[in-house]
Amino acid sequence: MTVYLVGAGPGDADLMTVRGARLLAAADAIVHDRLVERSVLDLARRDAELVDVGKVPGRFTSQSMINDLLVSLGRRYDTVVRLKGGDPFVFGRGGEEMIALGRAGVVCDVVPGVTSAFAGPLAAGIPVTHRGLSRGVTVVTGHTERHDDGYFRRLANPELSLVVLMGVAARSSIATQLIQGGLSDETPVAVIESAWTTRESVTRSVLRELGSLDVASPAIIVIGPCAALSVRELLAETSALV
Amino acid sequence: MTVYLVGAGPGDADLMTVRGARLLAAADAIVHDRLVERSVLDLARRDAELVDVGKVPGRFTSQSMINDLLVSLGRRYDTVVRLKGGDPFVFGRGGEEMIALGRAGVVCDVVPGVTSAFAGPLAAGIPVTHRGLSRGVTVVTGHTERHDDGYFRRLANPELSLVVLMGVAARSSIATQLIQGGLSDETPVAVIESAWTTRESVTRSVLRELGSLDVASPAIIVIGPCAALSVRELLAETSALV
Repeated sequence: MTVYLVGAGPGDADLMTVRGARLLAAADAIVHDRLVERSVLDLARRDAELVDVGKVPGRFTSQSMINDLLVSLGRRYDTVVRLKGGDPFVFGRGGEEMIALGRAGVVCDVVPGVTSAFAGPLAAGIPVTHRGLSRGVTVVTGHTERHDDGYFRRLANPELSLVVLMGVAARSSIATQLIQGGLSDETPVAVIESAWTTRESVTRSVLRELGSLDVASPAIIVIGPCAALSVRELLAETSALV
Repeated sequence: MTVYLVGAGPGDADLMTVRGARLLAAADAIVHDRLVERSVLDLARRDAELVDVGKVPGRFTSQSMINDLLVSLGRRYDTVVRLKGGDPFVFGRGGEEMIALGRAGVVCDVVPGVTSAFAGPLAAGIPVTHRGLSRGVTVVTGHTERHDDGYFRRLANPELSLVVLMGVAARSSIATQLIQGGLSDETPVAVIESAWTTRESVTRSVLRELGSLDVASPAIIVIGPCAALSVRELLAETSALV
Protein backbone atom coordinates (compact mmCIF):
# COMPACT_ATOMS: atom_id res chain seq x y z
CA MET A 1 0.00 0.00 0.00
CA THR A 2 3.09 2.18 -0.37
CA VAL A 3 4.78 3.24 -3.59
CA TYR A 4 8.50 3.97 -3.18
CA LEU A 5 10.19 6.15 -5.80
CA VAL A 6 13.72 4.76 -5.76
CA GLY A 7 16.84 5.96 -7.53
CA ALA A 8 18.57 3.01 -9.19
CA GLY A 9 21.86 4.89 -9.42
CA PRO A 10 24.07 5.17 -12.49
CA GLY A 11 24.12 1.55 -13.67
CA ASP A 12 25.97 -0.99 -11.53
CA ALA A 13 23.70 -2.67 -8.91
CA ASP A 14 26.40 -2.09 -6.25
CA LEU A 15 25.85 1.65 -6.64
CA MET A 16 22.24 1.57 -5.42
CA THR A 17 21.74 2.77 -1.88
CA VAL A 18 21.43 0.20 0.90
CA ARG A 19 17.82 1.32 1.45
CA GLY A 20 16.95 1.16 -2.25
CA ALA A 21 18.40 -2.36 -2.60
CA ARG A 22 16.44 -3.52 0.45
CA LEU A 23 13.15 -2.13 -0.89
CA LEU A 24 13.79 -3.67 -4.31
CA ALA A 25 14.34 -7.09 -2.73
CA ALA A 26 11.06 -6.76 -0.82
CA ALA A 27 8.86 -5.32 -3.59
CA ASP A 28 5.71 -7.07 -4.84
CA ALA A 29 5.80 -5.01 -8.03
CA ILE A 30 8.50 -2.97 -9.77
CA VAL A 31 7.90 -0.34 -12.44
CA HIS A 32 11.15 0.56 -14.18
CA ASP A 33 12.68 2.60 -16.99
CA ARG A 34 14.65 1.44 -19.97
CA LEU A 35 17.92 2.73 -18.51
CA VAL A 36 17.78 0.49 -15.44
CA GLU A 37 20.37 -2.28 -15.80
CA ARG A 38 19.53 -5.99 -15.72
CA SER A 39 21.92 -6.47 -12.75
CA VAL A 40 19.78 -4.06 -10.73
CA LEU A 41 16.55 -5.88 -11.58
CA ASP A 42 18.22 -9.16 -10.53
CA LEU A 43 17.91 -7.88 -6.93
CA ALA A 44 14.11 -8.30 -7.18
CA ARG A 45 12.13 -11.26 -5.82
CA ARG A 46 11.61 -13.93 -8.49
CA ASP A 47 7.84 -13.67 -8.09
CA ALA A 48 7.74 -9.87 -8.26
CA GLU A 49 5.67 -8.29 -11.04
CA LEU A 50 8.06 -6.36 -13.32
CA VAL A 51 6.71 -3.65 -15.61
CA ASP A 52 9.02 -1.95 -18.13
CA VAL A 53 7.71 1.51 -19.01
CA GLY A 54 10.87 2.37 -20.90
CA LYS A 55 10.28 4.97 -23.53
CA VAL A 56 11.64 3.31 -26.64
CA PRO A 57 10.66 4.45 -30.13
CA GLY A 58 7.40 2.90 -31.22
CA ARG A 59 6.57 1.82 -27.71
CA PHE A 60 5.76 5.08 -26.04
CA THR A 61 4.25 5.03 -22.59
CA SER A 62 2.91 8.44 -21.67
CA GLN A 63 3.56 9.98 -18.28
CA SER A 64 -0.15 9.91 -17.43
CA MET A 65 -0.31 6.19 -18.22
CA ILE A 66 2.64 5.63 -15.86
CA ASN A 67 0.92 7.69 -13.17
CA ASP A 68 -2.27 5.62 -13.54
CA LEU A 69 -0.31 2.36 -13.43
CA LEU A 70 1.45 3.41 -10.19
CA VAL A 71 -1.87 4.34 -8.58
CA SER A 72 -3.41 1.02 -9.57
CA LEU A 73 -0.43 -1.07 -8.37
CA GLY A 74 -0.20 1.00 -5.18
CA ARG A 75 -3.81 0.02 -4.36
CA ARG A 76 -3.24 -3.66 -5.12
CA TYR A 77 0.14 -4.41 -3.49
CA ASP A 78 1.86 -3.84 -0.14
CA THR A 79 5.18 -2.64 -1.57
CA VAL A 80 5.60 -1.12 -5.01
CA VAL A 81 8.96 0.22 -6.22
CA ARG A 82 9.08 2.81 -8.98
CA LEU A 83 12.68 2.45 -10.11
CA LYS A 84 14.37 5.26 -12.02
CA GLY A 85 17.87 5.48 -13.46
CA GLY A 86 20.04 7.84 -11.40
CA ASP A 87 18.03 9.96 -8.95
CA PRO A 88 14.21 10.27 -9.05
CA PHE A 89 14.24 14.07 -8.76
CA VAL A 90 16.92 14.87 -11.36
CA PHE A 91 15.03 14.83 -14.67
CA GLY A 92 13.19 11.76 -13.40
CA ARG A 93 9.72 13.32 -13.20
CA GLY A 94 9.59 11.97 -9.65
CA GLY A 95 7.83 15.12 -8.49
CA GLU A 96 5.04 14.64 -11.03
CA GLU A 97 4.53 11.00 -10.03
CA MET A 98 4.47 11.84 -6.31
CA ILE A 99 1.86 14.52 -6.90
CA ALA A 100 -0.30 12.11 -8.94
CA LEU A 101 -0.04 9.44 -6.22
CA GLY A 102 -0.79 11.97 -3.50
CA ARG A 103 -3.91 13.19 -5.33
CA ALA A 104 -5.11 9.60 -5.68
CA GLY A 105 -4.62 8.99 -1.97
CA VAL A 106 -1.82 6.45 -2.41
CA VAL A 107 0.93 6.59 0.23
CA CYS A 108 4.33 7.17 -1.27
CA ASP A 109 7.92 7.80 -0.20
CA VAL A 110 11.11 8.63 -2.03
CA VAL A 111 14.67 7.28 -1.80
CA PRO A 112 17.43 9.31 -3.48
CA GLY A 113 19.96 7.69 -5.77
CA VAL A 114 23.46 8.36 -7.05
CA THR A 115 22.82 10.69 -9.96
CA SER A 116 24.29 9.73 -13.32
CA ALA A 117 25.01 13.42 -13.86
CA PHE A 118 27.95 13.23 -11.41
CA ALA A 119 28.70 9.49 -11.33
CA GLY A 120 29.02 9.33 -15.11
CA PRO A 121 31.88 11.86 -15.20
CA LEU A 122 33.41 10.20 -12.12
CA ALA A 123 33.51 6.87 -14.00
CA ALA A 124 35.75 8.64 -16.52
CA GLY A 125 37.93 10.11 -13.74
CA ILE A 126 36.41 13.56 -14.16
CA PRO A 127 35.64 15.49 -10.97
CA VAL A 128 32.83 17.94 -11.89
CA THR A 129 34.30 20.42 -9.41
CA HIS A 130 38.03 20.91 -9.00
CA ARG A 131 39.87 23.79 -7.35
CA GLY A 132 41.21 26.20 -9.95
CA LEU A 133 39.21 24.62 -12.78
CA SER A 134 35.52 24.77 -11.84
CA ARG A 135 33.64 26.66 -9.15
CA GLY A 136 30.45 24.66 -9.61
CA VAL A 137 28.41 22.57 -12.00
CA THR A 138 25.20 22.95 -14.01
CA VAL A 139 23.15 19.90 -14.96
CA VAL A 140 20.64 20.09 -17.81
CA THR A 141 19.01 17.78 -20.32
CA GLY A 142 19.55 18.10 -24.06
CA HIS A 143 16.20 16.43 -24.62
CA THR A 144 13.99 19.48 -24.31
CA GLU A 145 11.06 20.28 -26.51
CA ARG A 146 12.59 23.64 -27.38
CA HIS A 147 16.40 23.45 -27.44
CA ASP A 148 16.33 25.86 -30.37
CA ASP A 149 15.22 28.87 -28.27
CA GLY A 150 18.78 29.91 -27.39
CA TYR A 151 18.58 28.12 -24.05
CA PHE A 152 22.13 26.78 -24.30
CA ARG A 153 23.54 30.22 -25.19
CA ARG A 154 22.40 31.36 -21.74
CA LEU A 155 24.24 28.43 -20.13
CA ALA A 156 27.68 29.49 -21.37
CA ASN A 157 29.63 30.14 -18.14
CA PRO A 158 33.37 29.39 -18.19
CA GLU A 159 33.45 29.25 -14.37
CA LEU A 160 31.19 26.16 -14.23
CA SER A 161 31.28 22.62 -15.53
CA LEU A 162 28.26 21.80 -17.69
CA VAL A 163 26.81 18.28 -17.65
CA VAL A 164 24.25 17.47 -20.35
CA LEU A 165 22.09 14.37 -19.96
CA MET A 166 20.32 12.93 -23.02
CA GLY A 167 22.22 15.39 -25.19
CA VAL A 168 23.66 13.17 -27.93
CA ALA A 169 21.00 13.93 -30.56
CA ALA A 170 21.21 17.70 -30.01
CA ARG A 171 25.00 17.86 -29.47
CA SER A 172 25.74 19.87 -32.59
CA SER A 173 23.20 22.57 -31.74
CA ILE A 174 24.34 22.59 -28.10
CA ALA A 175 27.98 23.19 -29.10
CA THR A 176 27.04 25.95 -31.55
CA GLN A 177 24.91 27.76 -28.97
CA LEU A 178 27.54 27.51 -26.21
CA ILE A 179 30.19 28.97 -28.54
CA GLN A 180 27.75 31.75 -29.56
CA GLY A 181 27.19 32.36 -25.84
CA GLY A 182 30.89 32.97 -25.30
CA LEU A 183 32.56 29.64 -24.49
CA SER A 184 35.87 29.02 -26.24
CA ASP A 185 35.61 26.47 -29.06
CA GLU A 186 38.70 24.87 -27.47
CA THR A 187 36.80 24.11 -24.24
CA PRO A 188 37.43 20.46 -23.32
CA VAL A 189 34.51 18.03 -23.67
CA ALA A 190 34.09 14.39 -22.69
CA VAL A 191 31.31 12.03 -23.69
CA ILE A 192 30.76 9.02 -21.41
CA GLU A 193 28.63 6.30 -23.02
CA SER A 194 26.96 3.62 -20.86
CA ALA A 195 28.79 4.69 -17.68
CA TRP A 196 29.20 2.03 -14.94
CA THR A 197 28.28 -0.81 -17.28
CA THR A 198 30.51 -3.29 -19.11
CA ARG A 199 29.84 -1.27 -22.29
CA GLU A 200 31.32 1.96 -20.84
CA SER A 201 33.29 4.10 -23.27
CA VAL A 202 34.82 7.59 -22.96
CA THR A 203 35.50 10.00 -25.85
CA ARG A 204 37.43 13.22 -25.25
CA SER A 205 37.64 16.22 -27.54
CA VAL A 206 36.93 19.96 -27.64
CA LEU A 207 33.67 21.87 -27.99
CA ARG A 208 34.28 22.69 -31.68
CA GLU A 209 34.31 18.95 -32.49
CA LEU A 210 31.40 17.85 -30.27
CA GLY A 211 28.90 17.79 -33.13
CA SER A 212 30.97 15.40 -35.22
CA LEU A 213 31.99 12.89 -32.54
CA ASP A 214 30.96 9.30 -33.19
CA VAL A 215 28.93 8.68 -30.01
CA ALA A 216 25.52 7.14 -29.25
CA SER A 217 22.87 7.32 -26.52
CA PRO A 218 22.73 6.75 -23.61
CA ALA A 219 25.60 9.12 -22.90
CA ILE A 220 26.58 11.95 -20.59
CA ILE A 221 28.34 15.00 -22.01
CA VAL A 222 30.70 17.04 -19.80
CA ILE A 223 31.83 20.47 -21.00
CA GLY A 224 34.49 22.57 -19.25
CA PRO A 225 38.14 22.45 -18.15
CA CYS A 226 37.43 19.51 -15.80
CA ALA A 227 36.52 17.37 -18.83
CA ALA A 228 40.24 17.21 -19.70
CA LEU A 229 41.11 15.68 -16.33
CA SER A 230 41.40 11.96 -15.90
CA VAL A 231 42.42 11.15 -12.39
CA ARG A 232 41.46 7.53 -13.10
CA GLU A 233 43.87 7.10 -15.99
CA LEU A 234 46.61 8.59 -13.84
CA LEU A 235 45.81 5.87 -11.31
CA ALA A 236 45.67 3.12 -13.87
CA GLU A 237 49.22 4.10 -14.89
CA THR A 238 50.28 4.15 -11.26
CA SER A 239 48.73 0.76 -10.58
CA ALA A 240 50.77 -0.67 -13.43
CA LEU A 241 53.93 0.63 -11.74
CA VAL A 242 53.17 -0.77 -8.27
CA MET B 1 47.37 -1.22 -0.12
CA THR B 2 44.37 0.51 -1.73
CA VAL B 3 42.78 3.79 -0.72
CA TYR B 4 39.09 4.04 -1.63
CA LEU B 5 37.53 7.48 -1.86
CA VAL B 6 33.96 6.78 -0.86
CA GLY B 7 30.91 9.04 -0.83
CA ALA B 8 29.11 8.69 2.51
CA GLY B 9 25.89 10.11 1.06
CA PRO B 10 23.76 12.84 2.61
CA GLY B 11 23.60 11.65 6.23
CA ASP B 12 21.62 8.49 6.95
CA ALA B 13 23.78 5.30 6.81
CA ASP B 14 21.07 3.61 4.71
CA LEU B 15 21.75 6.10 1.94
CA MET B 16 25.32 4.94 1.36
CA THR B 17 25.80 2.76 -1.70
CA VAL B 18 25.96 -0.99 -1.25
CA ARG B 19 29.60 -0.91 -2.42
CA GLY B 20 30.53 1.93 -0.08
CA ALA B 21 28.96 0.20 2.94
CA ARG B 22 30.80 -3.03 2.12
CA LEU B 23 34.17 -1.24 1.84
CA LEU B 24 33.54 0.63 5.09
CA ALA B 25 32.83 -2.63 6.91
CA ALA B 26 36.10 -4.11 5.58
CA ALA B 27 38.39 -1.11 6.10
CA ASP B 28 41.50 -1.24 8.29
CA ALA B 29 41.55 2.55 8.53
CA ILE B 30 38.97 5.26 7.86
CA VAL B 31 39.70 8.95 7.32
CA HIS B 32 36.51 11.00 7.56
CA ASP B 33 35.13 14.51 7.54
CA ARG B 34 33.17 16.31 10.21
CA LEU B 35 29.91 16.02 8.25
CA VAL B 36 29.91 12.22 8.24
CA GLU B 37 27.23 10.96 10.64
CA ARG B 38 27.93 8.68 13.60
CA SER B 39 25.46 6.10 12.18
CA VAL B 40 27.66 5.81 9.08
CA LEU B 41 30.84 5.31 11.13
CA ASP B 42 29.03 2.57 13.10
CA LEU B 43 29.33 0.42 9.96
CA ALA B 44 33.10 0.22 10.52
CA ARG B 45 34.96 -2.70 12.14
CA ARG B 46 35.43 -2.14 15.88
CA ASP B 47 39.21 -2.45 15.50
CA ALA B 48 39.44 -0.05 12.53
CA GLU B 49 41.61 3.04 12.94
CA LEU B 50 39.34 6.11 12.70
CA VAL B 51 40.83 9.51 11.87
CA ASP B 52 38.63 12.62 11.96
CA VAL B 53 40.08 15.31 9.72
CA GLY B 54 36.97 17.46 10.07
CA LYS B 55 37.69 21.09 9.56
CA VAL B 56 36.34 22.61 12.76
CA PRO B 57 37.44 26.06 13.97
CA GLY B 58 40.70 25.88 15.90
CA ARG B 59 41.40 22.40 14.66
CA PHE B 60 42.28 22.98 11.07
CA THR B 61 43.72 20.14 9.07
CA SER B 62 45.16 21.38 5.79
CA GLN B 63 44.50 19.57 2.53
CA SER B 64 48.20 18.72 2.14
CA MET B 65 48.26 17.16 5.62
CA ILE B 66 45.24 15.03 4.63
CA ASN B 67 46.98 14.01 1.40
CA ASP B 68 50.11 12.98 3.35
CA LEU B 69 48.02 11.04 5.87
CA LEU B 70 46.24 9.11 3.09
CA VAL B 71 49.56 8.22 1.45
CA SER B 72 51.01 7.01 4.75
CA LEU B 73 47.92 4.93 5.68
CA GLY B 74 47.72 3.57 2.12
CA ARG B 75 51.27 2.21 2.48
CA ARG B 76 50.58 0.67 5.88
CA TYR B 77 47.14 -0.96 5.46
CA ASP B 78 45.38 -3.27 2.99
CA THR B 79 42.13 -1.29 2.81
CA VAL B 80 41.84 2.40 3.62
CA VAL B 81 38.56 4.29 3.18
CA ARG B 82 38.58 8.04 2.72
CA LEU B 83 34.98 8.87 3.61
CA LYS B 84 33.44 12.13 2.43
CA GLY B 85 29.98 13.55 3.04
CA GLY B 86 27.85 13.37 -0.13
CA ASP B 87 29.89 12.58 -3.24
CA PRO B 88 33.73 12.69 -3.35
CA PHE B 89 33.85 14.70 -6.59
CA VAL B 90 31.24 17.38 -5.75
CA PHE B 91 33.18 19.95 -3.70
CA GLY B 92 34.88 17.02 -1.98
CA ARG B 93 38.40 17.67 -3.29
CA GLY B 94 38.40 14.02 -4.30
CA GLY B 95 40.28 14.87 -7.49
CA GLU B 96 43.08 16.52 -5.53
CA GLU B 97 43.44 13.54 -3.19
CA MET B 98 43.45 11.04 -6.06
CA ILE B 99 46.18 12.98 -7.83
CA ALA B 100 48.29 13.13 -4.63
CA LEU B 101 47.88 9.38 -4.09
CA GLY B 102 48.67 8.64 -7.72
CA ARG B 103 51.86 10.71 -7.58
CA ALA B 104 52.95 8.85 -4.44
CA GLY B 105 52.36 5.51 -6.16
CA VAL B 106 49.49 4.47 -3.88
CA VAL B 107 46.69 2.54 -5.61
CA CYS B 108 43.35 4.22 -5.27
CA ASP B 109 39.78 3.86 -6.46
CA VAL B 110 36.62 5.95 -6.11
CA VAL B 111 33.01 5.10 -5.23
CA PRO B 112 30.36 7.76 -5.94
CA GLY B 113 27.83 8.74 -3.32
CA VAL B 114 24.38 10.31 -3.18
CA THR B 115 25.15 14.01 -3.33
CA SER B 116 23.72 16.20 -0.58
CA ALA B 117 23.15 18.84 -3.27
CA PHE B 118 20.16 16.87 -4.60
CA ALA B 119 19.25 14.62 -1.65
CA GLY B 120 18.99 17.59 0.71
CA PRO B 121 16.25 19.26 -1.35
CA LEU B 122 14.61 15.85 -1.86
CA ALA B 123 14.41 15.41 1.93
CA ALA B 124 12.29 18.57 1.95
CA GLY B 125 10.12 17.27 -0.91
CA ILE B 126 11.78 19.59 -3.42
CA PRO B 127 12.55 18.12 -6.85
CA VAL B 128 15.45 20.21 -8.23
CA THR B 129 14.04 19.73 -11.72
CA HIS B 130 10.31 19.82 -12.43
CA ARG B 131 8.56 20.25 -15.78
CA GLY B 132 7.35 23.82 -16.20
CA LEU B 133 9.34 25.10 -13.22
CA SER B 134 13.00 24.30 -13.81
CA ARG B 135 14.92 23.17 -16.89
CA GLY B 136 18.04 22.26 -14.95
CA VAL B 137 20.05 22.87 -11.81
CA THR B 138 23.29 24.58 -10.87
CA VAL B 139 25.26 23.48 -7.80
CA VAL B 140 27.83 25.80 -6.23
CA THR B 141 29.42 26.41 -2.85
CA GLY B 142 28.98 29.63 -0.90
CA HIS B 143 32.26 28.96 0.83
CA THR B 144 34.57 30.43 -1.78
CA GLU B 145 37.58 32.57 -1.10
CA ARG B 146 36.14 35.31 -3.29
CA HIS B 147 32.35 35.40 -3.18
CA ASP B 148 32.58 39.18 -3.41
CA ASP B 149 33.75 39.21 -7.04
CA GLY B 150 30.22 39.24 -8.45
CA TYR B 151 30.29 35.48 -8.98
CA PHE B 152 26.69 35.04 -7.83
CA ARG B 153 25.43 37.84 -10.10
CA ARG B 154 26.55 35.68 -13.01
CA LEU B 155 24.58 32.72 -11.65
CA ALA B 156 21.20 34.47 -11.84
CA ASN B 157 19.23 32.33 -14.31
CA PRO B 158 15.46 32.05 -13.74
CA GLU B 159 15.29 28.89 -15.89
CA LEU B 160 17.43 26.89 -13.44
CA SER B 161 17.24 25.85 -9.81
CA LEU B 162 20.28 26.99 -7.83
CA VAL B 163 21.59 24.83 -4.98
CA VAL B 164 24.17 26.43 -2.68
CA LEU B 165 26.21 24.21 -0.38
CA MET B 166 27.99 25.76 2.64
CA GLY B 167 26.22 29.04 1.90
CA VAL B 168 24.75 30.00 5.27
CA ALA B 169 27.47 32.48 6.25
CA ALA B 170 27.40 34.26 2.88
CA ARG B 171 23.60 34.06 2.36
CA SER B 172 22.98 37.78 2.58
CA SER B 173 25.62 38.60 -0.06
CA ILE B 174 24.41 35.71 -2.24
CA ALA B 175 20.81 37.02 -2.21
CA THR B 176 21.90 40.58 -2.97
CA GLN B 177 24.03 39.49 -5.91
CA LEU B 178 21.36 37.23 -7.38
CA ILE B 179 18.81 40.06 -7.25
CA GLN B 180 21.37 42.43 -8.84
CA GLY B 181 21.88 39.76 -11.51
CA GLY B 182 18.19 39.83 -12.38
CA LEU B 183 16.39 37.26 -10.21
CA SER B 184 13.09 38.44 -8.75
CA ASP B 185 13.31 39.19 -5.01
CA GLU B 186 10.13 37.08 -4.71
CA THR B 187 11.95 33.96 -5.98
CA PRO B 188 11.16 31.08 -3.59
CA VAL B 189 14.00 29.82 -1.37
CA ALA B 190 14.26 26.87 0.99
CA VAL B 191 16.98 26.17 3.54
CA ILE B 192 17.37 22.55 4.63
CA GLU B 193 19.43 22.17 7.80
CA SER B 194 20.96 18.79 8.72
CA ALA B 195 19.12 16.91 5.96
CA TRP B 196 18.56 13.16 6.48
CA THR B 197 19.42 13.32 10.17
CA THR B 198 17.13 13.43 13.21
CA ARG B 199 17.93 17.16 13.47
CA GLU B 200 16.55 17.94 9.98
CA SER B 201 14.71 21.24 9.65
CA VAL B 202 13.29 23.11 6.62
CA THR B 203 12.75 26.88 6.38
CA ARG B 204 10.92 28.36 3.38
CA SER B 205 10.89 31.98 2.32
CA VAL B 206 11.71 34.25 -0.62
CA LEU B 207 15.05 35.53 -1.90
CA ARG B 208 14.54 39.01 -0.39
CA GLU B 209 14.38 37.46 3.11
CA LEU B 210 17.21 34.93 2.72
CA GLY B 211 19.77 37.12 4.51
CA SER B 212 17.65 37.46 7.64
CA LEU B 213 16.50 33.84 8.05
CA ASP B 214 17.41 32.21 11.36
CA VAL B 215 19.35 29.23 10.01
CA ALA B 216 22.68 27.57 10.86
CA SER B 217 25.29 25.37 9.16
CA PRO B 218 25.34 22.69 7.91
CA ALA B 219 22.56 23.62 5.53
CA ILE B 220 21.64 23.46 1.86
CA ILE B 221 20.03 26.47 0.21
CA VAL B 222 17.69 25.98 -2.79
CA ILE B 223 16.72 29.02 -4.86
CA GLY B 224 14.10 28.95 -7.64
CA PRO B 225 10.44 28.12 -8.27
CA CYS B 226 10.98 24.47 -7.27
CA ALA B 227 11.87 25.61 -3.74
CA ALA B 228 8.18 26.36 -3.16
CA LEU B 229 7.20 22.76 -3.94
CA SER B 230 6.76 20.24 -1.21
CA VAL B 231 5.64 16.97 -2.67
CA ARG B 232 6.48 15.36 0.68
CA GLU B 233 4.11 17.52 2.69
CA LEU B 234 1.40 16.80 0.16
CA LEU B 235 2.02 13.13 0.83
CA ALA B 236 2.11 13.53 4.59
CA GLU B 237 -1.37 15.09 4.33
CA THR B 238 -2.49 12.25 2.10
CA SER B 239 -1.10 9.62 4.44
CA ALA B 240 -3.17 11.12 7.23
CA LEU B 241 -6.29 10.62 5.09
CA VAL B 242 -5.59 6.98 4.22
